[in-house]
Amino acid sequence: MSAPTVSAPETAATPEAAGPDVIREGAFGNARALVCRECGSEVALGPQYACMECFGPLEVAYDFPTDLTREQIESGPANIWRYKALLPVPTDIETSPNTEPGFTRLLKADNLAAELGLSNLWVKDDSTNPTNSFKDRVVACALSAAREFHSKVFACPSTGNLANAVAAAGARAGMKTVVFIPSNLEHPKQVNSAVYTESLVAVDGNYDDVNRLASEIAGEEDGWAFVNVNVRPFYAEGSKTLGYEIAEQLGWRLPDQVVIPVASGSQLTKVDKAFQELIALGLVEDKPYKVFGAQATGCSPVSVAYKSGTDVVRPVKPDTIAKSLAIGNPADAPYVLDVCRRTGGAVEDVTDDEIRAGILLLARNEGIFTETAGGTTTAVLKKLVETGQLDTSLDTVIINTGMGLKTLDAISGQVGPAATIDPSYAAFAATGIA
Amino acid sequence: MSAPTVSAPETAATPEAAGPDVIREGAFGNARALVCRECGSEVALGPQYACMECFGPLEVAYDFPTDLTREQIESGPANIWRYKALLPVPTDIETSPNTEPGFTRLLKADNLAAELGLSNLWVKDDSTNPTNSFKDRVVACALSAAREFHSKVFACPSTGNLANAVAAAGARAGMKTVVFIPSNLEHPKQVNSAVYTESLVAVDGNYDDVNRLASEIAGEEDGWAFVNVNVRPFYAEGSKTLGYEIAEQLGWRLPDQVVIPVASGSQLTKVDKAFQELIALGLVEDKPYKVFGAQATGCSPVSVAYKSGTDVVRPVKPDTIAKSLAIGNPADAPYVLDVCRRTGGAVEDVTDDEIRAGILLLARNEGIFTETAGGTTTAVLKKLVETGQLDTSLDTVIINTGMGLKTLDAISGQVGPAATIDPSYAAFAATGIA
Ligand SMILES: Cc1ncc(COP(=O)(O)O)c(C=O)c1O
Ligand SMILES: Cc1ncc(COP(=O)(O)O)c(C=O)c1O
Ligand SMILES: [Zn+2]
Ligand SMILES: [Zn+2]
Repeated sequence: MSAPTVSAPETAATPEAAGPDVIREGAFGNARALVCRECGSEVALGPQYACMECFGPLEVAYDFPTDLTREQIESGPANIWRYKALLPVPTDIETSPNTEPGFTRLLKADNLAAELGLSNLWVKDDSTNPTNSFKDRVVACALSAAREFHSKVFACPSTGNLANAVAAAGARAGMKTVVFIPSNLEHPKQVNSAVYTESLVAVDGNYDDVNRLASEIAGEEDGWAFVNVNVRPFYAEGSKTLGYEIAEQLGWRLPDQVVIPVASGSQLTKVDKAFQELIALGLVEDKPYKVFGAQATGCSPVSVAYKSGTDVVRPVKPDTIAKSLAIGNPADAPYVLDVCRRTGGAVEDVTDDEIRAGILLLARNEGIFTETAGGTTTAVLKKLVETGQLDTSLDTVIINTGMGLKTLDAISGQVGPAATIDPSYAAFAATGIA
Repeated sequence: MSAPTVSAPETAATPEAAGPDVIREGAFGNARALVCRECGSEVALGPQYACMECFGPLEVAYDFPTDLTREQIESGPANIWRYKALLPVPTDIETSPNTEPGFTRLLKADNLAAELGLSNLWVKDDSTNPTNSFKDRVVACALSAAREFHSKVFACPSTGNLANAVAAAGARAGMKTVVFIPSNLEHPKQVNSAVYTESLVAVDGNYDDVNRLASEIAGEEDGWAFVNVNVRPFYAEGSKTLGYEIAEQLGWRLPDQVVIPVASGSQLTKVDKAFQELIALGLVEDKPYKVFGAQATGCSPVSVAYKSGTDVVRPVKPDTIAKSLAIGNPADAPYVLDVCRRTGGAVEDVTDDEIRAGILLLARNEGIFTETAGGTTTAVLKKLVETGQLDTSLDTVIINTGMGLKTLDAISGQVGPAATIDPSYAAFAATGIA
């Protein structure tokens, strides 16, 4: 995909009318440029993701309006577009077909807090997003970019949830979608993608193999927007909305501690970026906060690096039931380590048994049925408390990024009917449940 | 469960403090009494559901504030409690632990509209509720009632979704839950309940058997709140919020046509009640609208009665993949017929094959993965258009009440990977997908 040129202000107001290689004025809202995270070089906004100077990852930089108010945001829609001024999207983004994700529940979790000995705990519950994971947020931003770049195909390599979100958003936007997954992925996640798209491609290999294949295809084919490859800078910004929402829903203040699952690490770094932006814009008071990362022991390259005190993250071959977190070679690992160390947080990991217990802990205490990724986060919360890494007197938020029906097999052996009875009161009385 | 007496204004401000048989002042907000739908007799608000004069069903009646404004509602939370003034709940309902359901997406469905030849179509998508069905709405209202009645057990007979919602809400509220389901229910729905509660009871029989058993237990045991049996009047009011939200999200106006799935028929009648209330309160303009009911042919007692032009609904033995709609003896059937006939709508039914096709139709066009109930509604929409019963030039809303991962087997045989390949570009190119 070659980089289009930016059009003059007087050109067409819709991406379709702008012609194949022209990016219309205002296509990316207040975004100014792509900046290299490593060397700081800037390039124009375009379908690029690696710095041409040093191969570092590119990130979106903005000229934010200095007069943005809480009230302006609050008067927006009950989805991520209330924060459109802070995202690389056009000002009329709501009018283009999209899945309208976000503004999910922030639940005060008093039962779980009591169980673990915490004073104040909240669960940011992204299981109620359109395709039941936080991925709908990033995909909505990637979809906008793909539209502005006149992409012909909307695609991704995925550990499952991303494929669901891409296939759904593409269907709604009327774009051709092709999604790539490891062939051993959970059955519900496979079916979930296949209902939306005719082009679900299963790849014999792990996620890192699928990811490499996607980069290869992105290089060979013209007009393909791989949301987490060649439009990754735009995609990744979507996760900032988790940070914005947490702050707004806490009454425009930052939490003291936040626990976030880590696969590629993108989400964790973007929640931190969101908090920093809110401080810079004067939308919340400046205060310290700690960011904690959660991994499965069976795929814990970032946790291992954190614990050994190094910056060097060694790729691993994943072996865990937390398949959505099974990225053995995480692109944003160094930045995760940065954020967790800078803020005084940590990265921790838990076993598959602890993950299963984490799923039940959240369900039985708060009525939230999460997938293995959320079981990981909940179990890591517990471990951080037990090991004294988390301050139980501080306000803590955990992010539940996915939902349990997608990883049913992880838990279905452990729960079930207490009894199977005839339809009579006598049969019920005999169960001893009353 | 014997009826508590209503306390004087000076008594305690929380249900706990009020003592076991006293209902505190303001426990039910602006609700005034329970009124018999058949003979109009009134009784005091309490855990009752059948008229003592004629055995007709009781319904909540209100003294609504006459000065309620759109702005007051819009300034409320992004969940059903924004409408608390119109529900039988206390004014501080948000502060009691609950799942915070509602204010789900109303998506403009232009692709599906074009596919079916409709001018303007919207999908009200309740698949993104906390436990992924509209049942979270009714259960939140029932939970409030159970709390005010000092119930010890929160329970239900269920076709699946209700059990999920009751078990989750009870867990969050810290109440003991017991949920009853037909033993042949879909596996995901069983597991989904069992993660939240230790007391999932499978009953060998169909839903109507389970329902009878629940009534028996409600009679035998003290302090059990069966949400859809002895607290049914309070429970049922929760479905009104679907009607309120559709009107608000359309810009405070009523749709011309709305298509709603029918099991017991409660939801359909309450959406109509909501529209009537909004008109009476001056919150929307008075205008005609048509209500259509959707059933599966394998359990279509209401549709059969509608088509034969009678008021008499003959119970059936359900045989359909739409298990959440498989109520053979629907409590509110006569009122569904009333509403559909009065408004100029209809009741229609579709086969299991049409239901499967309906699931794919909604997924491929709008990126919404629904369960068999939503497949039924979508397929009925299609049939209503094809048979000329629906006016394609009018503004139409369909309600998607559930989500596809709960009925995965209904569709998993029909979709899947387009190809399984090695992780190489050559292997991908050979698929012909690019
Ligand atoms: C449910 C869930 N949680 C968390 C993550 C981690 O996201 P990230 O790659 O941004 O670290 C993923 C990634 O696929 C996911 O599916
Ligand atoms: C997904 C779904 N849709 C619709 C219905 C019908 O609801 P009602 O009994 O109010 O007619 C149900 C009832 O269980 C349901 O689970
Ligand atoms: Zn660089
Ligand atoms: Zn009566």
